[in-house]
Amino acid sequence: MRNFTYHNPVKLVFGKGSIAELGSLVPRDAAILMTYGGGSIKKNGVYDQVKAALKGIHWLEFSGIEPNPQYDTLMKGVELARKNKIDFLLAVGGGSVLDGTKFMSAAIPFKGPEPWDIMEGKASIDVALPVGCVMTLPATGSEMNRFAVVSRDATHQKLAINNEKLAPRFSILDPETAYSLPDRQVTNGIVDTWMHAVEQYLTYPLDTPLQDRQAEAILQTLLEEAPKVFKNPRDYNVRANLMWCATHALNGLLACGGISDWTSHRLGYELTVLYGIDHAQSLAILFPAVLRHEKANKIEKLVQYGRRVFGIQDTPERTADLAIAKTVEFFRSVGMKTRLADYGIPASDFDKILGKFKPADRLGERRTIDKQGILEILQLCD
Amino acid sequence: MRNFTYHNPVKLVFGKGSIAELGSLVPRDAAILMTYGGGSIKKNGVYDQVKAALKGIHWLEFSGIEPNPQYDTLMKGVELARKNKIDFLLAVGGGSVLDGTKFMSAAIPFKGPEPWDIMEGKASIDVALPVGCVMTLPATGSEMNRFAVVSRDATHQKLAINNEKLAPRFSILDPETAYSLPDRQVTNGIVDTWMHAVEQYLTYPLDTPLQDRQAEAILQTLLEEAPKVFKNPRDYNVRANLMWCATHALNGLLACGGISDWTSHRLGYELTVLYGIDHAQSLAILFPAVLRHEKANKIEKLVQYGRRVFGIQDTPERTADLAIAKTVEFFRSVGMKTRLADYGIPASDFDKILGKFKPADRLGERRTIDKQGILEILQLCD
Repeated sequence: MRNFTYHNPVKLVFGKGSIAELGSLVPRDAAILMTYGGGSIKKNGVYDQVKAALKGIHWLEFSGIEPNPQYDTLMKGVELARKNKIDFLLAVGGGSVLDGTKFMSAAIPFKGPEPWDIMEGKASIDVALPVGCVMTLPATGSEMNRFAVVSRDATHQKLAINNEKLAPRFSILDPETAYSLPDRQVTNGIVDTWMHAVEQYLTYPLDTPLQDRQAEAILQTLLEEAPKVFKNPRDYNVRANLMWCATHALNGLLACGGISDWTSHRLGYELTVLYGIDHAQSLAILFPAVLRHEKANKIEKLVQYGRRVFGIQDTPERTADLAIAKTVEFFRSVGMKTRLADYGIPASDFDKILGKFKPADRLGERRTIDKQGILEILQLCD
Repeated sequence: MRNFTYHNPVKLVFGKGSIAELGSLVPRDAAILMTYGGGSIKKNGVYDQVKAALKGIHWLEFSGIEPNPQYDTLMKGVELARKNKIDFLLAVGGGSVLDGTKFMSAAIPFKGPEPWDIMEGKASIDVALPVGCVMTLPATGSEMNRFAVVSRDATHQKLAINNEKLAPRFSILDPETAYSLPDRQVTNGIVDTWMHAVEQYLTYPLDTPLQDRQAEAILQTLLEEAPKVFKNPRDYNVRANLMWCATHALNGLLACGGISDWTSHRLGYELTVLYGIDHAQSLAILFPAVLRHEKANKIEKLVQYGRRVFGIQDTPERTADLAIAKTVEFFRSVGMKTRLADYGIPASDFDKILGKFKPADRLGERRTIDKQGILEILQLCD
């Protein structure tokens, strides 16, 4: 096991009716900016619940934060917040709304001329506004972590930052808010959760048996619960279990003492930027190919994954192959397409994708995947 | 799944050599009181490591905190801290040192005449001094929770409190500090960890599959790692894995959304008070009897426990019985005695034990165990 530091001060309030606790969680004397996305929260009653819970508190709103939140959009919110001397941000929605709001929390008090420098790592975060969250889409884990991913179409960039000042003060998780999600977002959420768990798990053994089993616990639970949610979208416990899995898959615990491989995420960002496909869709295309390419490097954990998660009993070699096939099968079973062709991405575009990487870039837990390796992974996609 | 709130702001610094980070974790301008136990930290080098890490910082020390920390002892520390205007407490040792120090953190600024009122729930904790910790004995999970258990011989009491102000600011966990532990403490730590996991898990099903598997992950890891530690006490990864299991078994996550049954702990406190046996020893005697008594109430989870943790494949009835037998077998395999007679506690003493309970007391996750039930449990002990 490797040395690590773990610190996760996010307060979680989980369960049906929990939005009503908002009033006791936000600072009552603050000027609050509530942020949200395209307005689904107005249709499913969440907006009204938030409004009722904030009765007597001064708040403004900023809407229009899109999936893969855009820098230009967020900067409009930054301007609004600065003008109104906002000192608390309340994100209501999914991971994109929260990630965008986390970025805003650092950008609002930022002194430099170009807050994008924060995303590029050219500027540090000296101070960030406090953020609270009502999470309505189990997927990214953003509700219990310090990550934010922001896109900028003008420069074809999608970048992630990791800073302790970005952790929400609190996150409210009411599984009932997920009842009205479209299937596509449920599918995306399940695959995104799966991917967070496996990218921290499927590397090489570092003698971390508890962390391994904590990852397998999430994967086994997803295998069990995912089919149920499509059959009965209003099954409270199923929604609650999927939500709790999503939070756990990226709250930092799985990575403690181990090593992660975010290759699929890193490559996936580029597919999203270039083709506008959903984040989880990009992962479902790439991950099987990453596993095929890295089979030798990951063989011990691949066999463990096959045996423990899918119950495969075969030779190590065949168990690894079957585990990859079973992964694809699971993705498809929840309605996720897994082929480049499903999204009209032709092999002739691989050069364009490769163009997003520098010669010195190295991916994989052993830092062995160079540009040639990335090309090979793309060629191994279905 | 039930509604819950989870908030655990403890910062963990885990790994070999991590005591050296102390200097950057404590407030440098504070007056620090370092607390410890019987002096084992002077023999195993931990005291010297702490001293080196605190170079240039003002600190005093208070030693002599015993296992099952005594109120009278702790009040001497409270007096010392008040006299020296201490404003930060640094606990160096195991769960007893940390629990005692947590109590001191509330007692030092306490305005009333009798700080024991805090333990009895007669007084609230308005303010507590910040506490940091160097945890050297994986067992109680105190390093990542807000519990403190304190004993008072004069009144034959052992009481637990649970208050968010008692959570340590940070805990340093260096598995190498456990190398020199006597076998008895290693055994106690393994059994205590096991018990924390099972008492939050072995109740009735509430559709919490992730939390169930997180508990099973700890139990399976203990089954795997425990035999190794006695064979090779200086195996770093084994020590690290046992330490990480102990932290996870009582950091609050397993209880999220479920229901717990602390019957063995509650009864065990009385055995410790009356007979001076170790905390974990009391649990190992009582737990099998609690399971035998509550078999019908716990049958679904007992079967799950038998199948998933011990791999038993039999009828539900026999799986439950075998699971109880396997639990006893595991305790004995790590050197733990499990019989009342092993500690010279005769059946004629049961009345004395029962005398510690009030007629209205009810134990068990269904609150169905009354004084008659407690007597039956004692009679079911080996």
